Amino acid sequence: MTESISIKADEMKSVFFRILVNTGYADSKAARIADIFTVNSLEGIYTHGVNRFPRFIRNTRDGFIDAHAEPSLVHVSGSLEQWNGNLGPGPLNALAATNRALEIAGTHGMGLVAMANTNHWMRGGYYGWHAAGKGMVFIGWTNTIANMPAWGAKDPRLGNNPFVIAVPWGSDAIVLDFAMSLYSYGKMESYANEGRKLPYPGGFDSGGRLTDDPAGILESWRTLPIGYWKGASLSLLLDILAAILSGGFSVNKITEKKTEYALSQVFIAIDVSKLHNLPTLRDTVQDIIDDLHGSAPAEPGTVIRYPGENVHRIKEDSLKNGIPVARNIWEEILSL
Amino acid sequence: MTESISIKADEMKSVFFRILVNTGYADSKAARIADIFTVNSLEGIYTHGVNRFPRFIRNTRDGFIDAHAEPSLVHVSGSLEQWNGNLGPGPLNALAATNRALEIAGTHGMGLVAMANTNHWMRGGYYGWHAAGKGMVFIGWTNTIANMPAWGAKDPRLGNNPFVIAVPWGSDAIVLDFAMSLYSYGKMESYANEGRKLPYPGGFDSGGRLTDDPAGILESWRTLPIGYWKGASLSLLLDILAAILSGGFSVNKITEKKTEYALSQVFIAIDVSKLHNLPTLRDTVQDIIDDLHGSAPAEPGTVIRYPGENVHRIKEDSLKNGIPVARNIWEEILSL
Repeated sequence: MTESISIKADEMKSVFFRILVNTGYADSKAARIADIFTVNSLEGIYTHGVNRFPRFIRNTRDGFIDAHAEPSLVHVSGSLEQWNGNLGPGPLNALAATNRALEIAGTHGMGLVAMANTNHWMRGGYYGWHAAGKGMVFIGWTNTIANMPAWGAKDPRLGNNPFVIAVPWGSDAIVLDFAMSLYSYGKMESYANEGRKLPYPGGFDSGGRLTDDPAGILESWRTLPIGYWKGASLSLLLDILAAILSGGFSVNKITEKKTEYALSQVFIAIDVSKLHNLPTLRDTVQDIIDDLHGSAPAEPGTVIRYPGENVHRIKEDSLKNGIPVARNIWEEILSL
Repeated sequence: MTESISIKADEMKSVFFRILVNTGYADSKAARIADIFTVNSLEGIYTHGVNRFPRFIRNTRDGFIDAHAEPSLVHVSGSLEQWNGNLGPGPLNALAATNRALEIAGTHGMGLVAMANTNHWMRGGYYGWHAAGKGMVFIGWTNTIANMPAWGAKDPRLGNNPFVIAVPWGSDAIVLDFAMSLYSYGKMESYANEGRKLPYPGGFDSGGRLTDDPAGILESWRTLPIGYWKGASLSLLLDILAAILSGGFSVNKITEKKTEYALSQVFIAIDVSKLHNLPTLRDTVQDIIDDLHGSAPAEPGTVIRYPGENVHRIKEDSLKNGIPVARNIWEEILSL
């Protein structure tokens, strides 16, 4: 069990900023990247916030991420645009792609930006919250390096290809951000680091047995797709779409490179502000959420929540008490 | 175990046509509906083909489906259109919505048709295959009556909300068509009718135990969402999007009506024919599928397939040998 310490958001952001500038990022880019990593941590997504920051820095220093690259427009077909991420930092590329999709949607009702040669966006939900904050629906996904076997297979050939849907809800939002594997590798690593079993079996061990032991799954890489064959199929389709819409690399091509970079991503924005039912939109969502909250719990005391419901509470708590970080991870960051 | 008989596609289609005409459908509509039910059966989706035909006829006779209604345009916002299905037959409404989305995509690069007040589309994959046959990517979904509990709950408040992604691949297609529950009710009914257990636990029985007994799940209605909390969340978001984009009913409003009608559906088409990478598009898909097929099977003899791969084989077999139908279902149809 690793000791956890608390770091205030402002301190975390300024540490990130300093390291990013030392790694070659221009001040304005370092500030935006530091903010994204800090917000992800504030909102409880440590695996794609503070815990992932060292790898982001290493990937930049190793040349897989080009600190100076900007995305460039390749091709336009109406409300669909194809962009090249030019191997720039994933979070900034993803934010630029999201903003461009929002602009297109403002003009055409909806917009799609497909981006080739980009890098890990960290937490896809960040872009969902961003788009919803501008009053737009967001649907987006990324491919990844192969990390999950096809259904019935034992060698990883599918990505876990995180998928995001965000819906604006007044000044709030409903945001779903999930990978095609039942548990993310980051989550399984956290459980393994803490010596805990997974709540449900999450994959197969090297002997082919379904197991809730995260260490066994991290060894075999046979993580379980959500819904077995269904999640495996959805992963495949998301990869095909990301690759053909962007003209970029598919999971198997990324996997050939050994290091996860040069990804393909899709960003769709839908402008709900011009719908005929705009006046009742917020109430419709409220009604659906009220009904969900009225569910009868299977076990006494179980609270039924919508995706993203915990974010505000976690954020408020972290703003007040600091962001919990494993001491060894924070020390690693300070040594970068 | 019910005896299975074989019905030739032409005979099936003409029986469907006659019954549809007797039920009040105009000849041209009856012909198209009969074709959709027959194709779905030919392609192996019996639960949303021949097995579901009696319910479609009953729903029409009971007034939940208006045999004469046509969809009407409500509102346009660029490449996004809102339509009213006017409670017409689901398959014809869905086909019209798909065709309209294809037209918009041809003009704008992509198109979205959201349709309120429509009815069960039977097999969503039909519209995916249709769009892919026209060279377009298709993403679509429908909401349903509540038939699955929220995660942690025991009373059904979510729909299984089938979701379809189709990608054209030369003259072929990759088509994924899946519900948010691990097993569809149609599938569980088939297993229950045949007295068989499910391959994997598919829900909870009335005592709250995870079970592979379909009868126990059909009794409790506690079907398992794909990926547990993830599929439950995806179901919720698909319902929210269907309801707000169409201005139609959400799952909880449909559920209040007791009978499943007046659904909300979304149809997105993306025109890949104007992408800068069109010349390599087919090869990109081929490369991904070749890699998938190269997977190492977990068990000797397991064949790794992509979604939709079985369709052609099943169709050829059924064209040659007839469509397998349970005798009691066919007798019920002949008595309609």
